Amino acid sequence: MSIITLTTDFGTKDHFVGAVKGSIYNELEEAKVIDISHQITPFSITQTAYVLKNAYKNFPKGTIHIIGVDSEISVENKPIAILLDGQYFIGCDNGILSLITNEIRPEKMVEITIPDPEEYQFAILGKFIKVACHIARGGMLEVIGMQIDSIKEIVEIQPFINSEKNQILGSVIYIDNFGNVVSNISKSVFSEIGKGRDFEIVARNYRFTKVYKRYNEVVDYTIPTDKRQDDGKRLALFNSASFLEIALYRSNLKTVGGASVLLGLKYRDPITVKFF
Amino acid sequence: MSIITLTTDFGTKDHFVGAVKGSIYNELEEAKVIDISHQITPFSITQTAYVLKNAYKNFPKGTIHIIGVDSEISVENKPIAILLDGQYFIGCDNGILSLITNEIRPEKMVEITIPDPEEYQFAILGKFIKVACHIARGGMLEVIGMQIDSIKEIVEIQPFINSEKNQILGSVIYIDNFGNVVSNISKSVFSEIGKGRDFEIVARNYRFTKVYKRYNEVVDYTIPTDKRQDDGKRLALFNSASFLEIALYRSNLKTVGGASVLLGLKYRDPITVKFF
Amino acid sequence: MSIITLTTDFGTKDHFVGAVKGSIYNELEEAKVIDISHQITPFSITQTAYVLKNAYKNFPKGTIHIIGVDSEISVENKPIAILLDGQYFIGCDNGILSLITNEIRPEKMVEITIPDPEEYQFAILGKFIKVACHIARGGMLEVIGMQIDSIKEIVEIQPFINSEKNQILGSVIYIDNFGNVVSNISKSVFSEIGKGRDFEIVARNYRFTKVYKRYNEVVDYTIPTDKRQDDGKRLALFNSASFLEIALYRSNLKTVGGASVLLGLKYRDPITVKFF
Repeated sequence: MSIITLTTDFGTKDHFVGAVKGSIYNELEEAKVIDISHQITPFSITQTAYVLKNAYKNFPKGTIHIIGVDSEISVENKPIAILLDGQYFIGCDNGILSLITNEIRPEKMVEITIPDPEEYQFAILGKFIKVACHIARGGMLEVIGMQIDSIKEIVEIQPFINSEKNQILGSVIYIDNFGNVVSNISKSVFSEIGKGRDFEIVARNYRFTKVYKRYNEVVDYTIPTDKRQDDGKRLALFNSASFLEIALYRSNLKTVGGASVLLGLKYRDPITVKFF
Repeated sequence: MSIITLTTDFGTKDHFVGAVKGSIYNELEEAKVIDISHQITPFSITQTAYVLKNAYKNFPKGTIHIIGVDSEISVENKPIAILLDGQYFIGCDNGILSLITNEIRPEKMVEITIPDPEEYQFAILGKFIKVACHIARGGMLEVIGMQIDSIKEIVEIQPFINSEKNQILGSVIYIDNFGNVVSNISKSVFSEIGKGRDFEIVARNYRFTKVYKRYNEVVDYTIPTDKRQDDGKRLALFNSASFLEIALYRSNLKTVGGASVLLGLKYRDPITVKFF
Repeated sequence: MSIITLTTDFGTKDHFVGAVKGSIYNELEEAKVIDISHQITPFSITQTAYVLKNAYKNFPKGTIHIIGVDSEISVENKPIAILLDGQYFIGCDNGILSLITNEIRPEKMVEITIPDPEEYQFAILGKFIKVACHIARGGMLEVIGMQIDSIKEIVEIQPFINSEKNQILGSVIYIDNFGNVVSNISKSVFSEIGKGRDFEIVARNYRFTKVYKRYNEVVDYTIPTDKRQDDGKRLALFNSASFLEIALYRSNLKTVGGASVLLGLKYRDPITVKFF
């Protein structure tokens, strides 16, 4: 039985998530519904893409991902379904899926054309669930939609590389639960441009000349535990999604705040790498 | 196998929700436990009823809903179970269920009389789970309780209709995750009193003369995308629960706030409809 | 099929929890993954132990608990797995498990020695899932690790008992979702030292001479409902985890705040019991 995941900006206070799950189980008793996130900032296309891109790869082939962000259908916001990397994605053609397909070429893309029996305000309660259960039962995309060749492109704010190829001008694309600041500079772009040269990363007035692989590499374990003062140390590292991240080692979010607050870094702020 | 849902004010930080799920699986290995919400404002009877009423309808017949809000048993707060609309509800007789049964007549109502082996502080960990698993296994309500004819009535703040039948005086009953302001004026009362006449809706000093069916109906799609200024537009619409709602189109909650904050509308504030 | 639970400080906004669940289902299709909490204060060892200790007991024998708090592996933070009370716990040797094993002797303890094929930043995505699925399939701990005799001891701030044995000096160890203040004074220590004597509990400048069994014991049900003024009453009781707790009866958290805010009691503040 296929897994059906949910990624929405519904929050978990209201009845919406419960209503969606109830509808799925009503349609397909043996479904396995898994939450990816319901805490997406309302209508945030880039945040949805970041979260889904980093979560979906861990799921088994055949998993069906329903995206309930900006899913009110309009002439400009059509319901689509794609097959990519062996997994299915159902959402509106609002750019979220293009941020996923720009890395991996989709195997199939359809505009969903099945009618909505009850005219739901949000596609997720009607068409999306119908399509998800159709796929879960082994149905084909062609049956519920019309093949399309392109979807709405959103160019993610890509890092800019100067003509001398010694500088990457990136920016903040995500702040995580720990207050860590994630940039759009991927490990592969960093390696490709850097070619092993020395570098300096600048984020506001903070400078970093090393990129760690793990957070706790900033700790000197030869110093006795009670003499260490590592908590709150600033560091740059490639995070588990392979993006350059500015973090504070074990910063206490509830008291002093994470990297975002303490270093004053916000969504879209510049992060620069210079190679020497 | 029946689904067992949970609607509580426990939050998701503490061990309570985990403890309840563990107990259910301990009693009935093959149970399917689904969260409706654990973010109900502590002890809020009306919020629980609003969330549950709008979620339960989507679940399949036979679903069992456990309500963990105000569930400390006392002489005045007895544990009850009802069968309504083909689904089961287990909670305390504190008014939540009367807000659901005032729309649909229950098929059966019992006061739960089975003993609580371990004297749990909250009925949910003891009696409620025992009853839910009993029903899930195909058991009858009569076996675990004593039939009752009435439950504690709470009159939901109903909208007032003036004697000339040209005015509905309603109020705010819920603020959702997007900051949208939900009134107690249902689409059916609106149609019944309005009879297709022109109208004006007043919420504080804001006026609306149209009720939309979808949020994006405020958008003029003939205007080029980069010229549009629809975000943040005020609108009245019937929401997915069929109540009159005051909303802002795609308002950014994290920066400027939703309708509740921007229009200064709080729980219980008046919302009025005048027909001409 | 065994249940696999998750207790983490990941929050529910990011992709982390979804990634972990996806990986488990990828490894073991028929797994049953249950959230205990993802809202642990980042890196809080004692909070994790409190939540897990009070949740795990309700789960069936054979349940596997994965702990994703402070799970970045280092020379000082080794991955371990223990069998205790018929259930399995997988985490790092950071003290969390010693706070659970100091009550019940573990049946088996191993240091996890299986290699991590993909060098994950956090053990939870690699080794922990591998081990959990191995156990869920009926595998033995000896196969994935090396038996150990001791784990890192963290002495939980235990209440201090004076030499006259007429005073317990405890402290606040947890604040729950309702703002209730939980101390480290267990019902059993209270009974053992108190031996039925009269007592006075002091928390800041508040005094209590009675410990309730249920919150609503403060209500005098002989007084007519509309004359009662019980909401917000201060009380001491033994909570469902059997610890002495200072609470306010049905305090409205959203408006006036719970016991923590209103009585000014914070994590680690002293709570004292004097017996006469």
